[in-house]
Amino acid sequence: METMGRHIITELWGCDTNKLNDIGFIEKLFVDAALEAGAEVREVAFHKFAPQGVSGVVIISESHLTIHSFPEHGYASIDVYTCGDRIDPHVASDYISRELHAKTSEVVEIPRGMGPIAIANKKTVEVGMA
Amino acid sequence: METMGRHIITELWGCDTNKLNDIGFIEKLFVDAALEAGAEVREVAFHKFAPQGVSGVVIISESHLTIHSFPEHGYASIDVYTCGDRIDPHVASDYISRELHAKTSEVVEIPRGMGPIAIANKKTVEVGMA
Repeated sequence: METMGRHIITELWGCDTNKLNDIGFIEKLFVDAALEAGAEVREVAFHKFAPQGVSGVVIISESHLTIHSFPEHGYASIDVYTCGDRIDPHVASDYISRELHAKTSEVVEIPRGMGPIAIANKKTVEVGMA
Repeated sequence: METMGRHIITELWGCDTNKLNDIGFIEKLFVDAALEAGAEVREVAFHKFAPQGVSGVVIISESHLTIHSFPEHGYASIDVYTCGDRIDPHVASDYISRELHAKTSEVVEIPRGMGPIAIANKKTVEVGMA
């Protein structure tokens, strides 16, 4: 297997607070996002914190998706890492941003397994408030 | 809880091939690395691929540690992400590098939950071959 991978770091602000605190919703969202990108799901582990917040991971054949949510700040910290070039991690990242109703999405792509680390394809999307 | 976090991306090359393919060793290593840094372990999920390679995650109260190993390339792709300032993610990252006998370790720190994403504290360590 090739070491080459694409690691997308996504910072979401202004998300739907209730969704960020709903472990059932978040777990289904992350599995769906992986499948939407065409990934193969291998392991799923999520954890609900008290008084609030959800952390979790979906391990896929192609690497992983993770989330840490902070409902009180409307913030979610997302990683989508895919090895190889069969899957586009942006598909999963964009799907998650949409479903969490993020008002601002900052996305940075970091190549993995290819030598020196550099940030690529940095973009910030401000979504107009409805 | 504060959104501020430190995300360490560690690229390890020249690792011990047998260790990279040993799911029992890797899982224990990652739990130990989390504990060494003073983190609280919440969930553990690892997966062994055929014919080789291990992927896995330790979810900690302070965020997560992940690995994807490629024994055939002596390569391991590591993330150590810790929220707050109580834990130093470098402690876990350095512990993992040492235990996998990496000959080269490239480490990049990415601040999370603090606005615009930027790479900080980039360092590459070449470990002399014994």
